[in-house]
Order: sequence, then structure tokens, then C-alpha cells
Amino acid sequence: MMSRKICISVIGSGNSDGTLSPQIAKIANDVGREIAKRGAVLICGGLGGVMTEAAKGAKEEGGFTIGIIPDDDPDSANPFIDISLPTGLGFARNGLVAYSGDVIIAVSGRLGTLSEISYAVIKKKPVIGIHTWDLEQLFDRMGPDDKKFYSDSIIKCESAKEAVDKAFAIIKKK
Amino acid sequence: MMSRKICISVIGSGNSDGTLSPQIAKIANDVGREIAKRGAVLICGGLGGVMTEAAKGAKEEGGFTIGIIPDDDPDSANPFIDISLPTGLGFARNGLVAYSGDVIIAVSGRLGTLSEISYAVIKKKPVIGIHTWDLEQLFDRMGPDDKKFYSDSIIKCESAKEAVDKAFAIIKKK
Amino acid sequence: MMSRKICISVIGSGNSDGTLSPQIAKIANDVGREIAKRGAVLICGGLGGVMTEAAKGAKEEGGFTIGIIPDDDPDSANPFIDISLPTGLGFARNGLVAYSGDVIIAVSGRLGTLSEISYAVIKKKPVIGIHTWDLEQLFDRMGPDDKKFYSDSIIKCESAKEAVDKAFAIIKKK
Amino acid sequence: MMSRKICISVIGSGNSDGTLSPQIAKIANDVGREIAKRGAVLICGGLGGVMTEAAKGAKEEGGFTIGIIPDDDPDSANPFIDISLPTGLGFARNGLVAYSGDVIIAVSGRLGTLSEISYAVIKKKPVIGIHTWDLEQLFDRMGPDDKKFYSDSIIKCESAKEAVDKAFAIIKKK
Repeated sequence: MMSRKICISVIGSGNSDGTLSPQIAKIANDVGREIAKRGAVLICGGLGGVMTEAAKGAKEEGGFTIGIIPDDDPDSANPFIDISLPTGLGFARNGLVAYSGDVIIAVSGRLGTLSEISYAVIKKKPVIGIHTWDLEQLFDRMGPDDKKFYSDSIIKCESAKEAVDKAFAIIKKK
Repeated sequence: MMSRKICISVIGSGNSDGTLSPQIAKIANDVGREIAKRGAVLICGGLGGVMTEAAKGAKEEGGFTIGIIPDDDPDSANPFIDISLPTGLGFARNGLVAYSGDVIIAVSGRLGTLSEISYAVIKKKPVIGIHTWDLEQLFDRMGPDDKKFYSDSIIKCESAKEAVDKAFAIIKKK
Repeated sequence: MMSRKICISVIGSGNSDGTLSPQIAKIANDVGREIAKRGAVLICGGLGGVMTEAAKGAKEEGGFTIGIIPDDDPDSANPFIDISLPTGLGFARNGLVAYSGDVIIAVSGRLGTLSEISYAVIKKKPVIGIHTWDLEQLFDRMGPDDKKFYSDSIIKCESAKEAVDKAFAIIKKK
Repeated sequence: MMSRKICISVIGSGNSDGTLSPQIAKIANDVGREIAKRGAVLICGGLGGVMTEAAKGAKEEGGFTIGIIPDDDPDSANPFIDISLPTGLGFARNGLVAYSGDVIIAVSGRLGTLSEISYAVIKKKPVIGIHTWDLEQLFDRMGPDDKKFYSDSIIKCESAKEAVDKAFAIIKKK
């Protein structure tokens, strides 16, 4: 009896400054929907912005959502989180979000997302990015081996469906 | 739409030294079963001993299980874990197990369990104990206020069913 | 060139509720003084109560102090801390305080101290206790091997000088 | 009595794959020397590569060094570390290195360094970079406010002396 569920972590900015664009919100919602449609669990940081939109999308399709939150109060999670895991670790919880997904999907994002991408690539987790950081841009001072490594570290996609399709293609190959 | 599930954390020793008694293993299994029967999610540290027995019991009743594990490899979780959350935090993950339950049920346990009980009581989480540490035993140097506080900090039970019944009685009152 | 300094962690309650007794404050101050007199670095949780008194004592003797604090603002440390290490980890920083000392000296203490003692004993760090938790009290349900283990896990002392003398005797033997 | 020391965190790659160039090693060593000459404490991740070179430089000038290390064994620190703080947190210790410096100096670096830069900028810590990541390169999808923010987030320097001079100029202004 092996009951492990497929988990996909969705990362992206938290919108604490209210600047999340409707375009990014729509993509995050669609990513959540696509994950739920395929029966996978959505893991995220449990707060606002991309995290809320993705969890909302997953719940709209009857999915299951987990929020790994920075403070120690489970009620800090957004209302679309089925299981709120309060860590009390502040931004150190970012590593946990990165480690917990079989694949990581990054939608836009700022510095917290950048730390999560760093952790995910350190741990050799597949990262799929939609309008997010691009480690490849920083290559001019690096040698060809590094160039290849960082170029491969984030798989770029344009749409939610393409991203989730690629995530499942990677999971099936494992 | 508020979808938060009821979560109960089960803590207890990991049996790395092979000394878990059949009596404690049975209690842990029964605790897992009783949690699953009532539709709550079982959270644990994801490894062996009480954690394996409780998760196994929950799965035998069709429940849902989460393992918050100390290392960064999700495959370190026992086979009865639905969602393995690798933290890479070592024993610092003990706090997360304590914070994540609406109620904590301790079954036996050694030093890791003692740290989890400490964290749970710090955060005012209800702790129900079966054959576990007893903070009340240490009271001789304390004043009457402390005595009352520590005496109330762990609700003692003798059986799995009694423990889970009390857990749900507490959750309903909230 | 090997420059590692001897470090002693002093743990005990933070006095957030104003109940630290003058007797315990005096012992904590004396522990800090004795550590500084012997040229060791004092590590603590950096906040109030026993942590402030011990750091104050160390500074009064020209010692060196480190505070590993729970929040992310270095200015939260008490004024007797030379180096404030903000962790942003909340109570998860307790493990770091326990791991960082060559020996741990516990002076009184409540639940945070109990978690630190748990972590220290897990990592086989020598723990010296003055008017603090006594794991031995919890032995009635344990077999003789456990009894011996827990009985040896905290070395009981009555005075600051005795505690620091024992700490250095242990360090010299290593 | 306020005894807080000035602390500068030096971050950069750990050279576990043996690719640290002599040029970067020299810069890291010089950064350590310059910090020590000015009487500040050097904080780093305590391991190899840039961390070893910087700590070595600081000790060669009679400085004081702290290593915040990922595992729980203080002896994992490099031999130029005065105080080894074992965290047992794995890469989650990166946040602590970033939070602990009054200023952060990044020398080259890979993914761990990128996570540390992310944390430092989140916490509004001044970051000085020598041949390191450049958040500004990632700006094409961002608006002018973001462009300005990220452009200012890392102060670029070419030499160790310039970097440490700028660090102290920032510290004096506070």
C-alpha cells in the first residue's frame, strides 16, 4: 500500500502591495484549475496574490490544497486552503514550499519567489516558469557548463495549460 | 467557501532503536483509525514507530495522512503517508508538527516528543497524552499558578478512543 | 590555525510575565560571570530574564556574548549582546541555541527551556541544570535502560560556580 | 552599556565542485582582510570556497569570524571560524546569514548565494556585489518602479576594498 499523492507547488508573488495584474491572476487561477483537473494536490505558501488565485482555481475544480504559511497561526491562510500548515519560520518556509512539490510552477513573482526558485534548483526539482525570473539572463560571466545548467533550470511556458501539461509529462517520466 | 479540514497531529517515538512495544503500536494504530473514522486529517512526523502505526491505522480506515519529515527527500516518509512534506530542517520540523494540528495526541514518546509537547503547550494547542510525558511531575519547585498551568497542559487518557473523542469534543467547543 | 572558541549556551526563562525571582536572576548573572572569567563565549537566546541576566554578568566580567533571537530584527536583542543573530524562525531558534554550546547550562526555565533541553539531549550535548526541569521525574513508565539514560541526561548543580566548573571539566575531557 | 559589534556577512559559492577561480578566492580573502582591519565581525556560512577564503583573510588580520552552518555538527565549519553555529536547518540557514549582517557582501556565488541575496533584499539589508548575480538583468517584464527597486538592490563593486569601504559608509549613515 503506497498512497503518495502527486503534489505540485505553485509559487508567485503575494500581492501585499496590491500590484498583481489581472493577467497574472488569471494565469494563477488557471494553473490551479489544471492541477485540480488532473487530480494532483496543489501546494503553495498559503497567503495572497498568486497563492490565493491558484488555490481558488483548484477549489473551483474540486481539487485539494495545502498552504505552508510563514507565521504560526493556521487562520492566516487564504480561504481556499484545505490544510493550513503554520510553520512559524517566516520566509524560511519558502524552502519547504520548494521541496514539497514533485514539480514547481512559478507564476510571475518577486524576491520570495526567487528564493523558492533557488531552493528548487538546488534540490534538482523541475521548475516551470510563466512570466517569472530567468536565471539564464545572468550568464555572461559564466562558463558554458554553467550556461547549460542555468538555461535548463527553468522550463519556460506561456500558458497555464502548457505549464501543467509539462509538469505531468515530467512526473510520468520519473 | 471555507474549506479548511480538521487536522489532528499524532506524535510519539520513531522506533529507530526497535523498542516500540506492541501495546504502544496498537494504541497508535487505533488513534489513526479513530481519526480517520471521524473524517479528520492525520498529521505526523512521517517516519517510523508511532508515526508509521498511526498513519497505517488511518489509511486502513480510508483516512488522509500528511507527514512533515525532517530531511529533504519526500521518499523518506513511511508508505502510509499521502502527502510527504520534506522540510530539510532536521528536528526543527518538530515545531511544525506541533503547530499544524487543531489538537495534538501524544502516544508514548521520547525526547523528540517532549520537544513537540513543549511547542504545542507554548502555542496553547490542546495536548492529549496516552502513556507519555507528564509535565505535572516536575512541580515541586513551582508555585500554585504554575502547578495549575502545567497540570492542565496535557489531558491524560488511557485509550485511543477516549483520546480521539476528547480531541473532537475540544474542536467542537472552539 | 584552528581558532574555535569554547562556547557555553545558557538557557532559561525569558521573564515576559515578570515572574523571574531575584534568586534565579542572581544565579543567571553569576553563571554569565563565571563563563566570562574562564574566557569562554556565552551563547543565549538574546532576550530577557535569564538571558539578559547571564549576558549582563558576562559583560560585567569583560566576556563575549551572542544572542540567537527568534525574530528577524537584530535590535530585539538585550543590550548585553555583542552579536545579535536574528533568525526569523520563532521558537525553532531554540534548537540552534541548544546545538551551539559545547555545554548547555539551564537555569530554571519553562517550556522554551524544556524544548531546548530536549534538543540538547537528542544531540548528546552535556546539560547542566540549576533549579530546572528534571527528566528523571518522568521515569515510572520506563525500563531500567531509559531510567539510566534520562537520569544521566541532566547534571544537577546548586550554584553557578559549581555549574561552570563542571562545564569546563566536561570540555577538558573531550 | 550597549556592546553590539558591527557584523558583515560575506556570501558566495562553497566550491563543493572545485571550480572556485583563483581570482574569486583572492577577492574573498581580501574582503575578509578588509573587514578585519576595520574591526568588524565577519559572518558567513562557515563552509568552503568563498566562505573559507573570507574567514581565512579575516583571521590573517586578527579578525573575528562566525560560521552559521547548515548541519548540526560544529566541526563541519572551516578551520578559520572562531564561533561555529550549527543550525541543523540545511539551506534554510541561508536566511540567517542574510539577516545577521549589517551589510551583506556577495562575492560571485551560485544558487545558495542567490537565495541569500533574495532574503537580504526582502529584509531591506544593503547588499554589495562583486561579480555576482544581478537582479537588474531580469527587468524587461517589469514596470519602472520595479526597475528602480531591483536596480538599487545590489550595489556593484569591482574590488574588495571598494566593497568594504562602501559597506562602512552605509553603516556610518545609519
